[in-house]
Amino acid sequence: MTDLLAEAQGLDARDPLAAHLDEFVDAPGVTAYLDGNSLGRPLRSLPERLAEFVRDDWGTRLIRSWDEQWMDLPTELGDRIGRVAIGAAAGQTVVADSTTVLLYKLMRAAVAASPDRTEILIEEGNFPTDRFVAEGVAAERGMTVRWLTADPVHGVQLEDVAAAVSERTALVVLSHVDYRSGALADMKAITDAVHSASGGVGAGALMLWDLCHSVGVIPVELDACGVDLAVGCTYKYLNGGPGSPAFAYVNARHHGVLRQPIQGWMGAGDVFAMKSEYAPADGIRQFISGTPPVLGMLAMQGMLDLIETATIDGVREKSKTLTEFAVRAFDDVLAPLDVRLLSPRDAENRGGHVTIGHPDFAEVTKTLWPDGVIPDFRFPDGIRLGLSPLSTSHVEVLSGVLAVRDALGS
Amino acid sequence: MTDLLAEAQGLDARDPLAAHLDEFVDAPGVTAYLDGNSLGRPLRSLPERLAEFVRDDWGTRLIRSWDEQWMDLPTELGDRIGRVAIGAAAGQTVVADSTTVLLYKLMRAAVAASPDRTEILIEEGNFPTDRFVAEGVAAERGMTVRWLTADPVHGVQLEDVAAAVSERTALVVLSHVDYRSGALADMKAITDAVHSASGGVGAGALMLWDLCHSVGVIPVELDACGVDLAVGCTYKYLNGGPGSPAFAYVNARHHGVLRQPIQGWMGAGDVFAMKSEYAPADGIRQFISGTPPVLGMLAMQGMLDLIETATIDGVREKSKTLTEFAVRAFDDVLAPLDVRLLSPRDAENRGGHVTIGHPDFAEVTKTLWPDGVIPDFRFPDGIRLGLSPLSTSHVEVLSGVLAVRDALGS
Repeated sequence: MTDLLAEAQGLDARDPLAAHLDEFVDAPGVTAYLDGNSLGRPLRSLPERLAEFVRDDWGTRLIRSWDEQWMDLPTELGDRIGRVAIGAAAGQTVVADSTTVLLYKLMRAAVAASPDRTEILIEEGNFPTDRFVAEGVAAERGMTVRWLTADPVHGVQLEDVAAAVSERTALVVLSHVDYRSGALADMKAITDAVHSASGGVGAGALMLWDLCHSVGVIPVELDACGVDLAVGCTYKYLNGGPGSPAFAYVNARHHGVLRQPIQGWMGAGDVFAMKSEYAPADGIRQFISGTPPVLGMLAMQGMLDLIETATIDGVREKSKTLTEFAVRAFDDVLAPLDVRLLSPRDAENRGGHVTIGHPDFAEVTKTLWPDGVIPDFRFPDGIRLGLSPLSTSHVEVLSGVLAVRDALGS
Repeated sequence: MTDLLAEAQGLDARDPLAAHLDEFVDAPGVTAYLDGNSLGRPLRSLPERLAEFVRDDWGTRLIRSWDEQWMDLPTELGDRIGRVAIGAAAGQTVVADSTTVLLYKLMRAAVAASPDRTEILIEEGNFPTDRFVAEGVAAERGMTVRWLTADPVHGVQLEDVAAAVSERTALVVLSHVDYRSGALADMKAITDAVHSASGGVGAGALMLWDLCHSVGVIPVELDACGVDLAVGCTYKYLNGGPGSPAFAYVNARHHGVLRQPIQGWMGAGDVFAMKSEYAPADGIRQFISGTPPVLGMLAMQGMLDLIETATIDGVREKSKTLTEFAVRAFDDVLAPLDVRLLSPRDAENRGGHVTIGHPDFAEVTKTLWPDGVIPDFRFPDGIRLGLSPLSTSHVEVLSGVLAVRDALGS
């Protein structure tokens, strides 16, 4: 234990991003927040940013702010996420709606593009909302959902996808980082496999990546990987706040071809068109439907500043030392108590969280939360240690692991 | 002029809600804000409310707030809107998404309920997003949009609807208050006509009211009028801030029957269901799709407090004196300059705004905005005077009208 503490302290002392820990709002009574991958912590600068927004942009500029800045915010902020976090050139990313609604829009757009294809391929352990949307879209289009089985710890593998994709496949939907195990999928190889199996880029099945558990914690290279479509949320590692809007990426080669179904004024070429017929805006803007949720787009901007300063590669480096240290602490402290590691051992195959399992973890979580040790419980018996690199220290990870041990012992 | 000023001052002096004018954030340089029906002004108390939220609910309770309060916020806030503003008993209203996305969900749910019916009936001058969604839904379901013609000043009339609705009609979509003229539709009579023409409540065509321009400024009685479906936005007279989420009302008699198409985890009976099949939550909750936009639900709560204090009937009374005074000022000052009144003359037939027309109004608006007189320009030649009762004084209305006169003269 002494060794682990010394190691944690040493890692923190050498952490080039340690200074950022102070930039987040204090959480009195919280000794270990290990759920930054469900809800990132707010920045200390946020209340003043919000107050300024209320006073100036909203309260004084009033409706004029729509012309002056808000109308382009969804695409400007999308471009910024593209540049800072997901390797997307400008004009392909937009902030809007929720992940669920954007999944619906993109899946509908994707399957309509190849009406002869009858299957949506999705991993059976994918996040519920991804599965629910896929089922719904398949049902309304008379299509079939083909379920891909993946190893619960190591996640979806290239071979699994390559074997399942066929000329019947319209769309493949996968998570880049598995929400349970943290397993990292090989985006480039899988995207290539989906494309080549179906006759080359743009000619057949499309690949939609869910980036909810990778955006902001691990470099993503959508353009370089030739990805067709992606969605992600902004309240995890982008710290946008509870229910902050999601983002969608549609590769430029599909603009003007793919059409999303929720035709709204803010995605129209002419927002106030008097004529009756909807004509979509050019480019990524047509994936917007209703009025952009401006207030919900503010908090993430501060976090994007921070990630830009730290660089996404720097964030990834710290993420690896955090999860590697979590695994070492697990080995020393929890494995002897029959806790199982439910994440890949090699940091290269893992995103920003580590999941561990024990039959008592539902009870353990109930004990820990009121005491200010806050991991995430995952049915049936998993605890997810979500380690948001810019707001989490190695000592905090150790506190959490020790608290789990103590709760198991009691 | 002297008379008008004395009258405005007298009306302000006798205004029982005048004290509330000070509860809104100051807008330095703004002498007349006449666009509260596009974007309501923020409350003075909001920055502190947001700061507390960031510090406590989000920053300290962290993920625990989902269990403690946020999961039920969409339905609790919906119930509150139902009680304070739209005459809806609990369990039928939910806050979510944008108006456009909710229109899509409700229209899709409605037309699926009567697959033999082939028409969506909508007024051709309805707000663009309503028309765009209707066109899109009709196209994807192989249905026809039937366009209803209405008088541009007096809006849709009972006879127009009664003549157009038939056994082919699946759904009628109308705005309660016309976004251009402010004309107020007869909700009860029209809803009855739609129902009786189609064989009685629940047996045929459904009625969907868009409340964007009526919620918070005029009492709405959805339950009493037997309305099937409604949507509305919260950034106008509910002052929820730019892009704050919308609300949907689904009458309880349709629960368990109507199904919306965007099947998401937050509308599922079991949010974290491990099994693959989506099963909707009971009641209004199934109309939620993705993670509720919590941050966007904060500002409107303060305004709902205010409306509850003032009562919606009190708000309506002041709304009438404001628009009546605007029409009198128009008669005295603007009619002689060939400005036309584009709203009903009788306050009983009008919502919270008054629209006037002149060929030079595009230019006039461009002159007024930088000078802090902020009405809303409506293509091709309308100026909309949106008078949010709790934040607008009669003297402010007069300043606006006089500024329009001066700009026309220059």
